[in-house]
Amino acid sequence: MDPNTDNSMSPKGGVASPTDINSRHGVNFSAPRGFMTKLKSAAKETLFPDDPFRQFMNGERRRDRIVKGFQYFVPLFEWLPNYNLRLFWSDLVAGLTITSLAIPQGISYAKLAEIPPVVGLYSSFVPPLIYAIFGSSRHMAVGTIAAASLLLFQTVSSVVKPEDDPTLFLHLIFTTTFITGVLQTTLGILRLGILVDFFSHSTITGFMGGTAVILCLQQLKGVFGMKHFTSQTSLISVVKAIIANGSEIRWQTTVMGIVFVAFLMATKYVKKKNEKLFWVAAIAPITTVIVGAVFTYIVKGQNHGIQIVGHLDRGVNPLSIHLLNFDSKYLPAVLKAGIITGVLSLAEGIAIGRSFAVVENTPHDGNKEMVAFGLMNLMGSFTSCYLTSGPFSKSAVNYNAGAKTQMSNAVQAVLMAMTLLFLAPLFGRTPLVALSAIIISAMLPLIDYEEAIHLFKVDKFDFLICISCFLGVTFISMDVGLFFSIGLGLLRGLLYVARPAACKLGKMPNSSDLYRDVEQYPVSTVFPGVLIVKLGSPIYFANSSYIKERIKRYIQSEESSGNIIERVILDLASVTSIDVTAIGGILELRKILGKNGKEMSIVNPRKEVMEKLILSRFEEVVGKETFFLSLDDAVAASQFRLSKADP
Amino acid sequence: MDPNTDNSMSPKGGVASPTDINSRHGVNFSAPRGFMTKLKSAAKETLFPDDPFRQFMNGERRRDRIVKGFQYFVPLFEWLPNYNLRLFWSDLVAGLTITSLAIPQGISYAKLAEIPPVVGLYSSFVPPLIYAIFGSSRHMAVGTIAAASLLLFQTVSSVVKPEDDPTLFLHLIFTTTFITGVLQTTLGILRLGILVDFFSHSTITGFMGGTAVILCLQQLKGVFGMKHFTSQTSLISVVKAIIANGSEIRWQTTVMGIVFVAFLMATKYVKKKNEKLFWVAAIAPITTVIVGAVFTYIVKGQNHGIQIVGHLDRGVNPLSIHLLNFDSKYLPAVLKAGIITGVLSLAEGIAIGRSFAVVENTPHDGNKEMVAFGLMNLMGSFTSCYLTSGPFSKSAVNYNAGAKTQMSNAVQAVLMAMTLLFLAPLFGRTPLVALSAIIISAMLPLIDYEEAIHLFKVDKFDFLICISCFLGVTFISMDVGLFFSIGLGLLRGLLYVARPAACKLGKMPNSSDLYRDVEQYPVSTVFPGVLIVKLGSPIYFANSSYIKERIKRYIQSEESSGNIIERVILDLASVTSIDVTAIGGILELRKILGKNGKEMSIVNPRKEVMEKLILSRFEEVVGKETFFLSLDDAVAASQFRLSKADP
Repeated sequence: MDPNTDNSMSPKGGVASPTDINSRHGVNFSAPRGFMTKLKSAAKETLFPDDPFRQFMNGERRRDRIVKGFQYFVPLFEWLPNYNLRLFWSDLVAGLTITSLAIPQGISYAKLAEIPPVVGLYSSFVPPLIYAIFGSSRHMAVGTIAAASLLLFQTVSSVVKPEDDPTLFLHLIFTTTFITGVLQTTLGILRLGILVDFFSHSTITGFMGGTAVILCLQQLKGVFGMKHFTSQTSLISVVKAIIANGSEIRWQTTVMGIVFVAFLMATKYVKKKNEKLFWVAAIAPITTVIVGAVFTYIVKGQNHGIQIVGHLDRGVNPLSIHLLNFDSKYLPAVLKAGIITGVLSLAEGIAIGRSFAVVENTPHDGNKEMVAFGLMNLMGSFTSCYLTSGPFSKSAVNYNAGAKTQMSNAVQAVLMAMTLLFLAPLFGRTPLVALSAIIISAMLPLIDYEEAIHLFKVDKFDFLICISCFLGVTFISMDVGLFFSIGLGLLRGLLYVARPAACKLGKMPNSSDLYRDVEQYPVSTVFPGVLIVKLGSPIYFANSSYIKERIKRYIQSEESSGNIIERVILDLASVTSIDVTAIGGILELRKILGKNGKEMSIVNPRKEVMEKLILSRFEEVVGKETFFLSLDDAVAASQFRLSKADP
Repeated sequence: MDPNTDNSMSPKGGVASPTDINSRHGVNFSAPRGFMTKLKSAAKETLFPDDPFRQFMNGERRRDRIVKGFQYFVPLFEWLPNYNLRLFWSDLVAGLTITSLAIPQGISYAKLAEIPPVVGLYSSFVPPLIYAIFGSSRHMAVGTIAAASLLLFQTVSSVVKPEDDPTLFLHLIFTTTFITGVLQTTLGILRLGILVDFFSHSTITGFMGGTAVILCLQQLKGVFGMKHFTSQTSLISVVKAIIANGSEIRWQTTVMGIVFVAFLMATKYVKKKNEKLFWVAAIAPITTVIVGAVFTYIVKGQNHGIQIVGHLDRGVNPLSIHLLNFDSKYLPAVLKAGIITGVLSLAEGIAIGRSFAVVENTPHDGNKEMVAFGLMNLMGSFTSCYLTSGPFSKSAVNYNAGAKTQMSNAVQAVLMAMTLLFLAPLFGRTPLVALSAIIISAMLPLIDYEEAIHLFKVDKFDFLICISCFLGVTFISMDVGLFFSIGLGLLRGLLYVARPAACKLGKMPNSSDLYRDVEQYPVSTVFPGVLIVKLGSPIYFANSSYIKERIKRYIQSEESSGNIIERVILDLASVTSIDVTAIGGILELRKILGKNGKEMSIVNPRKEVMEKLILSRFEEVVGKETFFLSLDDAVAASQFRLSKADP
């Protein structure tokens, strides 16, 4: 009755092309790995998939190792020794370009967060310096980000309104930045980059689009020159606010706003047509600011309702470490804001860094980036900066402007410090409408409807994740949209494992041991009396009863078409892991099959699965003759037993 | 350059045993299925894995279909037509046995929920009747459950203490039962049995054990005859309460309690030794109650501090539909209690039903069971019953007593009605200590330490899920323990997909197209310059960057040992699905490999994956020559290109 012995391989076995007897191999029943071995391997795969210490743990001399370790933790030491004047020239040009962008962006985004505009400028001084030392991406430009600024405002203003107590509000924003810094550094040190993996491409597409829409809507206040508006971001509240305060609309600012947006979009179009003219788009914002300020000064715009930024103090970042506020009254909101914006800005920063690394084949390490971001926010929170990351737009400009190393961020920092020391008051004359135009022109391209259409075509669930984030952000609020979308993604992950793909296999004609899905390859043939089912994914408690039902259904459908099944062969090659519930489920299935006079074979379990089966004494219960290494062997054994005619 | 054409199969290809040219098949690039086809298939797999309508949708005549449809929705019509006196005799004996268990259990469990004991008796009248009509399991016995009773008390008493307002408390318990009924019926109709799948075997083991411990601890009040105790369930509060009220301990009840527990455990031991004597254990509880009552009456126990149940009214269930209370003040707690106990009791009831169905090969349908449970709780909530389900212990007794159909539940209902009409006052004389002894003896066997040891041996994560539930229930509270444990299970599900197993393949000697994990089968050989990686599980946003890292690491480790990789072959046979992020990831990987002069081949993608690849135009970008149906073909093509020596 042992069908796995060699002499069971009778010529009348009916297998299409029986393999040579010598080629038969048994399943490996050797003893499982120890618990610590498995735990170490699991921890490594989960937290250290990139094997970060390989590079300096294998150094031959001790001194080498220390140097390499130092270079690993402080990337500055990696690129600075080979730095030269030619590289510096490139970085200087790039640094100048991104500073020209950093000034208007810093002011505008700080206004989004409802904090003093000068804080936006401060945030382009200290953080870029820190990143130049610890950052691993060579093309990243550090700066504030629009979406996170608005999200910070939304969350923190739920406990303190900036109009009620602007000082407290600002201190809470610094505290949020501190929390973000601690969180990001910790995630990086603990190597929990895995968290960022849960922002799918679809979520980010939807979130960017939704945020772009609400940011543009917010800017209508500036474009229309209105004094009263809503602090809510949803589409409906904004439309209501515009209707309610319609009488405040000033045609002067509206015209200026439209002209500015048209100008900025035109420069983007120029850049799109000719990548070499990228600098036209890059310096357009600062041009808008300067032209706007000069024009407003000349026509005495303030008398015509054109609002300006207002007084900006000279001087670099004052210390703010003593301003951090951990009052338990505000802490929940501060923590929430710090965590969401921290993870969000990591996701953006890491994604942009990775895409440059792919294009240029330069180094990039997600976990190092997290530490660098964390340190720059930590130091930022001590020196009157708020949340910074590596924004898409600024980094793209940096890359196009020819940045070669992290030095361009240092250049940005120095130029920003000089601006703060000497030019700050001039920028106070910037009309608000110019800032609104800059934000609108930066946001419009982020509404990536083409990508949404692509998602719709390829994967309806991905589209659902994307559009739910978009609609959630647009109509409810940023965090609701984001969480809902991430929740859908997780649900999908769970459904993947709760309803694993199973398929019925048939043998490809004229092949040996080539079994394929009969639906996908209708040329493949099935053997009478034998059902081969290939299971996929991990099988565990959440899908164990489903799998039983699925196999029973296969049997019923075979038998209803006249093919009485006598043996069920389970191909476990794709089953990556199994738990105790699922092992019990397979035993239960075997019992049910046995009651109906059917046998069960198991083919090619993977290492992880075999270990569990051995530990739970499964293979003792069912007998080693149930296991086969190849489908051909299992079919041959069953055909022998059935002694049926050729298929 | 197209390596997939037949003439590329040169004899010097170096493949161990080249298959016949005629056996080569290409990958199926045919057009993907339409969206509705896929949606229908996905919905079917998710919600209707057992294909429930097959049986009556395929009937030939219309009348047949209607009859079968009726039988499907009301299982009574399935078994009643073939019912006979012989079956009834068996069911009558079983019904008598379970009623003798239902009386003491009903009173004790109602006391656990701190509601009038008679409600526990009511709950064994109406619900069993409903189950006899709609239930699909032939061996299930309906009744109240200890764990859910305590959980109900815990949750509802957080808004209303039973000692403050016992009437309101009771009405809220009825409302909870109503909620449970609505929930269970809805889940059944929507076929969301998938929810129950998320209670893993490990969670249930831990939960049962933890609940048994706290239930036994609660019974120390009755055994010690104490008047003051704690309403908290955690181990620490109970120990504190006993120490604080130590002076109340009465030796009389303590002795009685110990004797009763010893007697009940002895009968269980008898049953274990000889299954035929199961009835000894089955009638032991009612014997305990009667002996206890008579003894207390004779010795005038009340004068010695032996408390009794108290007055029980004669008469069957009064209506309670007008007592349901949906006051928004209590609704959150009521909803929470209804949902948790509802899902929990489903999990228990469905598991026990399934296990009998496996043993006896009788029908069982999880979704039908949910509807039956839902209806019995719904009707129960209208007729002064509280939560009922199919408890393990009672159903096991029913099965052992020879129950053949759902009729035994009807017998139970009739006997219980008669008890309520004529004997209720007598049971009011039951000493509380007897009830405590019954609960303790029912709970002790549920502490399944052997199973915990088994879990520890086989799967440390399963053990962690189990023990966290046990400790959570014992030291914190039932719902915290349960949620924490389910959360761990979900986390595990997510980790399964976030870190999918990948392995390096080698070819088994003297085989054709038999490639296996080189770690698992060290006899397999790898080809110089070629890296074959088998990916598992779905690949999607949560693991796409991990997979890239993993493959890069394989290449690095190969190349550091001198094997310069020129071609990476990805075996996608085990990849059950893919999303847009992961498709982008593979393209990115291909780009990185290309920059380093390496090529990539893809082998045997499954139907679901191929559809996505075609929709996203992946196969147009990488070229159809990148795809191979078998590993042998892919290796042959690469060996040809490399024109290397034999492996």
